Amino acid sequence: MAQGIDDVIARWHRYMDGELPDGLDQLLADDVVFYSPVVYTPQRGKAVTTQYLRAAAGTLAGGEGGTFRYTKEVLAGDTAVLEFETSVEGKYVNGVDIIRCDDAGRIVEFRVMLRPLQAINAVHEQMGRTLAAGG
Amino acid sequence: MAQGIDDVIARWHRYMDGELPDGLDQLLADDVVFYSPVVYTPQRGKAVTTQYLRAAAGTLAGGEGGTFRYTKEVLAGDTAVLEFETSVEGKYVNGVDIIRCDDAGRIVEFRVMLRPLQAINAVHEQMGRTLAAGG
Repeated sequence: MAQGIDDVIARWHRYMDGELPDGLDQLLADDVVFYSPVVYTPQRGKAVTTQYLRAAAGTLAGGEGGTFRYTKEVLAGDTAVLEFETSVEGKYVNGVDIIRCDDAGRIVEFRVMLRPLQAINAVHEQMGRTLAAGG
Repeated sequence: MAQGIDDVIARWHRYMDGELPDGLDQLLADDVVFYSPVVYTPQRGKAVTTQYLRAAAGTLAGGEGGTFRYTKEVLAGDTAVLEFETSVEGKYVNGVDIIRCDDAGRIVEFRVMLRPLQAINAVHEQMGRTLAAGG
């Protein structure tokens, strides 16, 4: 199992670096569940999870000159926790991606938490605009 | 190093179960830093970290009949991530404790993140009352 999550996270980093354009389609299980840092209701399925992860990447990575970087990586069993720092609209953002995979090396759970409070509000507003624009 | 964090987390669970009344004094390094889910500014030192962790335990554990439970535990190297669920004022709370220790098995970093947004607001209000009351 530990081998599985190592491989998933290696592919996740390649996706985040722009080296796997269809990476999410390979990485996500059909029945993956996305847990938003803002909203209580779990978002179920590959389509909606892909939409959220793309919007989150756009908001958090910040494009060229973005300050997004992973600061801790803790992998064990079927689960990885990746801690990151970035800034959104000039506000410091600290967060975690909690990623769980199945035996086939597909992501079945993707959970995001953010701190501090002003970061969550900034990300919430920016992602709302991105999702409303269909991005 | 992995042995170190395993032992720290075993003692942390004993402290949370009420079996180590002076557990925080043994567990925390003098220069430990606490990162709040709400506030940006790191809280430095054993005294203020103890105050925050006691207030957090009171708010999140909820006393007798409390629903607090750890749902994931990911340990690697010098770091542990413990995911939990609980409820505060009837609101569902999902969070992580990110705990890093030194070679001597003392906690040098304690970071908390919560989701969803309404949970952070509920915890923020409740902890504000607890800290203002000196607890």
